[in-house]
Amino acid sequence: MTSLDDLPIRDDLRGRSPYGAPQLDVPVRLNTNENSYPLPEPVVEAISKAVAAELRDLNRYPDRDAVALRADLADYLGHGLGVGDVWAANGSNEVQQQLLQVFGGPGRTALGFTPAYSMHPLLATATGTAWRDGRRDADFGLTVAHAVAQVREHRPDVVFLCSPNNPTGTALDPAVLDAVLAEAPGMVVVDEAYAEFARPGTPTALALLPGHPRLVVTRTMSKAFGFAGGRLGYLAADPAVVDAVQLVRLPYHLSALTQAAARAALAHRETLLGTVRAIKEQRDRIVSGLRARGRTVADSDANFVLFEVGADQRAVWRVLLDHGVLVRDVGLAGWLRVTAGTPEETDAFFAAVDAWTAGVAGADPTSTVDSAVPGAAGPG
Amino acid sequence: MTSLDDLPIRDDLRGRSPYGAPQLDVPVRLNTNENSYPLPEPVVEAISKAVAAELRDLNRYPDRDAVALRADLADYLGHGLGVGDVWAANGSNEVQQQLLQVFGGPGRTALGFTPAYSMHPLLATATGTAWRDGRRDADFGLTVAHAVAQVREHRPDVVFLCSPNNPTGTALDPAVLDAVLAEAPGMVVVDEAYAEFARPGTPTALALLPGHPRLVVTRTMSKAFGFAGGRLGYLAADPAVVDAVQLVRLPYHLSALTQAAARAALAHRETLLGTVRAIKEQRDRIVSGLRARGRTVADSDANFVLFEVGADQRAVWRVLLDHGVLVRDVGLAGWLRVTAGTPEETDAFFAAVDAWTAGVAGADPTSTVDSAVPGAAGPG
Repeated sequence: MTSLDDLPIRDDLRGRSPYGAPQLDVPVRLNTNENSYPLPEPVVEAISKAVAAELRDLNRYPDRDAVALRADLADYLGHGLGVGDVWAANGSNEVQQQLLQVFGGPGRTALGFTPAYSMHPLLATATGTAWRDGRRDADFGLTVAHAVAQVREHRPDVVFLCSPNNPTGTALDPAVLDAVLAEAPGMVVVDEAYAEFARPGTPTALALLPGHPRLVVTRTMSKAFGFAGGRLGYLAADPAVVDAVQLVRLPYHLSALTQAAARAALAHRETLLGTVRAIKEQRDRIVSGLRARGRTVADSDANFVLFEVGADQRAVWRVLLDHGVLVRDVGLAGWLRVTAGTPEETDAFFAAVDAWTAGVAGADPTSTVDSAVPGAAGPG
Repeated sequence: MTSLDDLPIRDDLRGRSPYGAPQLDVPVRLNTNENSYPLPEPVVEAISKAVAAELRDLNRYPDRDAVALRADLADYLGHGLGVGDVWAANGSNEVQQQLLQVFGGPGRTALGFTPAYSMHPLLATATGTAWRDGRRDADFGLTVAHAVAQVREHRPDVVFLCSPNNPTGTALDPAVLDAVLAEAPGMVVVDEAYAEFARPGTPTALALLPGHPRLVVTRTMSKAFGFAGGRLGYLAADPAVVDAVQLVRLPYHLSALTQAAARAALAHRETLLGTVRAIKEQRDRIVSGLRARGRTVADSDANFVLFEVGADQRAVWRVLLDHGVLVRDVGLAGWLRVTAGTPEETDAFFAAVDAWTAGVAGADPTSTVDSAVPGAAGPG
């Protein structure tokens, strides 16, 4: 039998495993920052109708430039953006891969500040872009001085910033973005996948687009819109950037069904985004509830919370799973990440946490668990 | 205003244009090898129902491994293939891009024999893979001796072969594939996008998969299944190859809607593939009709025909367009490509051809046309 090692794969991919969080069948799944609310019936009906209208002509290629969808996305974003300022693809992963194909690639470098969205270095590797890790400080902070020093040292072709950051949950200090924009020799990509969940007063990098043709803001419909299964990510940037990604995009990359479904969802954004307020309430409840239990918790502008467990996080991940709650081990020693969902999911999460700490009071938790299956890092 | 030239794009992309055929609103579109038959109502209803069933849970990520869809594709292909032998993505372009990301990339080379599917060299460029062109002979043939000599000279990490070849339409001589498989040091990818249209007795490379772990056969639902708007390409290969592409695939690359729609289409394959016979009849009618008109025509195992126009093909392309028929200028001096569609489309095509030749008899055709807008090469 042939194994992966027998094939002539690239040397830099040898020994790697396919990437992604375990997809386990668990009652309470709080591991990939999905929106816990199913789509409401009126939105289901609207999307169903929009998709059905495309099916007869599915024998024809879709609109290669997805013009109508991009116009709708621009309208949603506001900030005076138009169709020429927006580009869309199958998830923000594909948008970011396209950016690295055109602005990164062989002989070029990308800089990020980990812990951050763990796909960024993997996308760099898969596009032949050298990855430079600017590392956040021990409490996951990122100062102006450190960010600027890293940019000066590595002179990256692409800088990735996340606001709010994943997995920490905290929005980027606007002064850091200002400083990086002033210092960076190449493109600056701000990943705003969770922007809709930010606390009041949190700025978006969209406001900085005028006058910054090398700034790119990426977004997704996976989270706030509850559209993870529909796969729709997008970017806003100078029209020249939109021209640039078209040099490497696969022709007809966005199916007619994806374009129609996303447009119908955007037309019902008032309804869909109604879940954001409810999720933020649970997010804040998780933050305060964990702090009340004596846990260190990062401030969150997202639909998830990073919290310290004071022990081997792989063991605690397993204990919580044994209590029916799947959270995420993002590979940070002593920390776990939990998605904010429904009130009932928050109840279940706290029950699992309390069962874990009660177990700790009575016995060594690591003795009862199998820590051989960590929740590997992955998207979401 | 910022232009593309002001941005720090890769040097090897400078001066290029986004890729693809003109999407013009013309009565008879025979330029991208789409299936001219709209989906029949029972299939529309089945896909609509399958998609609707996914919508409520669209807040959740799709099955990352698309297991059920891959099992259905394997069942369709036959040849004893199972889910572990098949991989799927958003069009065969994405499948081939993934293959180049894992087996090609910086410092590696891919070899093709042009004229062939014009995306292959572009996918190589976009993945940092050096492209080597083995060029077919003047009448578009590819001999065993020439193919083997090119493989020996370039020692490519990836070889692309097309059967039937696009844009010529002719199936690959099985002896060429045997010889390339024996000689190639790396992966051999046979692009069988049009396999369902082949003339009786044409072999498929699927039969060679046992014992050839470095052989990959790519297919698409765009053509025979009339599913171009749904974007579903796939490959069959040794399970180790499927493991390999998973190292570079974007997580959750295939939406829940794509998976459901493709499965419903596969369940109705008897109906959908019913168009193949009708299209082959028109294909044979186009070949014989053009030959009866004194044109040189390549043998076709596909749903398109490459024919010689004895003049500047850009000018002839425009004349046919002026008569309401959009064909494809694939960039071969003196040749054009036409898709086989419905009987009415064939009628319209011959009417346009006859109007063009009548015009030639009466006047210089190049004096009446604007040849500044060629139908650039592109997928389909």
